[in-house]
Amino acid sequence: MALEKVKQGVKGCSAMVVKIGGEDPRKIVHALKVGVAMAPVSLIYYFDLFHDGYSTGSGLYAMWAINTVAVVFEFSIGATIGKGVNRTFATLLGGALGVGAHSATSFAGNTSESIMLAFVIFFISGVATFGRFIPKLKARNDYFFLIIIVTFGLIAVCTYRGEKLIEMAEKRMFTVLVGYATVLVCCCICPCWAGQDLHTLVATNIHTLATFLEGFGGEYFGTGNKRHEMEGYRGVIDSKSIEESLVNFAKWEPRHGKFRYWHPWEHYLKIGRLTRECACKIDALNGCLNSDMKGSLEIREKVKGACTEMSRECSKALTEVAEGMKAMTRSTHADPHVKRAEAAVTNLKWVLQAPIWGDAHLLDLCPAATVASLLMQIVACTANVVDSVHELATLSKFKNPNVVTDVVLINLPLDIK
Amino acid sequence: MALEKVKQGVKGCSAMVVKIGGEDPRKIVHALKVGVAMAPVSLIYYFDLFHDGYSTGSGLYAMWAINTVAVVFEFSIGATIGKGVNRTFATLLGGALGVGAHSATSFAGNTSESIMLAFVIFFISGVATFGRFIPKLKARNDYFFLIIIVTFGLIAVCTYRGEKLIEMAEKRMFTVLVGYATVLVCCCICPCWAGQDLHTLVATNIHTLATFLEGFGGEYFGTGNKRHEMEGYRGVIDSKSIEESLVNFAKWEPRHGKFRYWHPWEHYLKIGRLTRECACKIDALNGCLNSDMKGSLEIREKVKGACTEMSRECSKALTEVAEGMKAMTRSTHADPHVKRAEAAVTNLKWVLQAPIWGDAHLLDLCPAATVASLLMQIVACTANVVDSVHELATLSKFKNPNVVTDVVLINLPLDIK
Repeated sequence: MALEKVKQGVKGCSAMVVKIGGEDPRKIVHALKVGVAMAPVSLIYYFDLFHDGYSTGSGLYAMWAINTVAVVFEFSIGATIGKGVNRTFATLLGGALGVGAHSATSFAGNTSESIMLAFVIFFISGVATFGRFIPKLKARNDYFFLIIIVTFGLIAVCTYRGEKLIEMAEKRMFTVLVGYATVLVCCCICPCWAGQDLHTLVATNIHTLATFLEGFGGEYFGTGNKRHEMEGYRGVIDSKSIEESLVNFAKWEPRHGKFRYWHPWEHYLKIGRLTRECACKIDALNGCLNSDMKGSLEIREKVKGACTEMSRECSKALTEVAEGMKAMTRSTHADPHVKRAEAAVTNLKWVLQAPIWGDAHLLDLCPAATVASLLMQIVACTANVVDSVHELATLSKFKNPNVVTDVVLINLPLDIK
Repeated sequence: MALEKVKQGVKGCSAMVVKIGGEDPRKIVHALKVGVAMAPVSLIYYFDLFHDGYSTGSGLYAMWAINTVAVVFEFSIGATIGKGVNRTFATLLGGALGVGAHSATSFAGNTSESIMLAFVIFFISGVATFGRFIPKLKARNDYFFLIIIVTFGLIAVCTYRGEKLIEMAEKRMFTVLVGYATVLVCCCICPCWAGQDLHTLVATNIHTLATFLEGFGGEYFGTGNKRHEMEGYRGVIDSKSIEESLVNFAKWEPRHGKFRYWHPWEHYLKIGRLTRECACKIDALNGCLNSDMKGSLEIREKVKGACTEMSRECSKALTEVAEGMKAMTRSTHADPHVKRAEAAVTNLKWVLQAPIWGDAHLLDLCPAATVASLLMQIVACTANVVDSVHELATLSKFKNPNVVTDVVLINLPLDIK
């Protein structure tokens, strides 16, 4: 029995590893990298390579190196650099403030010094904690404020105790540098760039909407089956927080791959916002798909042509810009599709302006009218998304696709997802 | 000039403090609480109250207490307890694993021991890092895995160096307990409960949708002006991540206020999801509001009555459940409103089934038909939200409102927002 359970547990664990690793093998690589970074750092202190001696007390320095590696080593380069920079500056500032507080209060007697010190610690901790609530600073510098509190409290108390502060600071800094160096080396093996992830995520989200719109015409007008992948747009609606954190990480990253210095990371938030707006309209459209009221077949036949055209052309335009983004080329094929979608809108308006048919009830017209109207809104949203991607192309100087790229793009299978 | 700039800086800072404090005064209280907690903990080590002596090296123990307070003291009680529990168990488990690894490898010679130790550190760090990628564990136990890595690495290396491990562990544990005690005391002064925040957030979100729907009828059918507060629904769409983290914190919290043990916190995610679905439809409705195409006045007049009724009754139903949630009473007034909204749907269908009017074009019907159809979807969504809040009332045994509460509820100004 117990053996069975152990077997099942092992099976469950390995299934999970396979699942998570299958979705993103870099996660397994990252876990290995952290292991690889921890082992040598630990051994340095095991062998006492820096001759700290055993008397310094309980692996004080080992701790700093191990701590640095464990805390600073994040999944993406941007997050790692961000944490490292915040940690470094916070330690320096907190240390300087601590020494300053000590010097400023040392002229007084023992009791009044302690009262003053307590007040200064109270004040600095309070201010730093409040800093964590400022939305802009929270996103990028939350860790900075945390480390300030820790370092300042420690230094302000320690200096008084007459230890060799400078020597301690030097040793500690050296140890932290050992930690940083290890992290840096390991980061460079199979690096995960937050910027690349953000770029892929935003492009994939656009592609997800295209997938829905591609399937919609066939599904609504009864020539196809609703496919599972059409539901993917729900994830797009919820992607705001992950986009925001990736933007914050990406800003720390140096030039990499096809991303230059000062790549306009902020602009991805705009594209993301417009994509989510479009996804919301698609959600309403999906409501029409699932509704019982489908309206009369006759009227659906009337609008079928224009609606299918709108949804197909929007899908093509979005696919084009998504592919263009992934290849980092200026997509010139998207605009004609948007134009054709807009032409289909005009066309639909013509169809709808024809006198009303025979004995149709307004209730029968309702579903078709809703779908038509939502699709018109979606065409406008698509145009916005396409424009914002074009803006990105201009801001980040995407290449114009040459002939060879064109052929490749057209023949690309739509396997972005 | 410089003085001017300093003046402006001070002005900007104080304006920000007033703004953040005005939105949520508890943030300022929290900053003060952290300051109050840090001061005595620092002074304990300043005065060497526990007689660690100055020889133990560089404020080793002070650091643990200061670290504990700074890291564990979070804004809400749930987050603080969660971090504290994760930290404690991770330290114990990491320490035990470290001692175990040391014992298991100590039989071998110096070189082979170091190799084995390096391998074990590599393995444990890798596994713990991978654990941080498992979605369920990441949400609640991210910090656990981090501390395991730190503690294990430290203990595995330290034990070899022949220090008095047990004595160190005891002192460290005592120091950490001092930190926890301080945090606990400070937590209890003006506590911020994540559960209460979650409850208020979900109720407020429902109320925000009600505000939009309340204003919609007047706005669309041209009897009112679009008010700024109607745009609030956008925040509802983006509230998923904050709801999820509040649920994770709330689960750590003991009984408080009107929340019993085992309050169904998970259920708030369901209410939140249904609220966001409704918000998405409202976004599409808002698109109709901003659209140029308003359709013919005649047709809008035809559907005006039923549409205004639907939107008003939905608004009332949502307001009712939001107020009921806030007061933690079972709202019995919401259902009649839902019923009336559903009756208005039937009514609208009747209106729409009448033969089509004179020379109307289908294009003229489009906007009104879309609004009608979206409102029908919203009525369905509202019914879902109301049902899910009723479920919450059953699960968490909300009181039935008595007569006095009724009167209070009806007379309550709608100032939840």
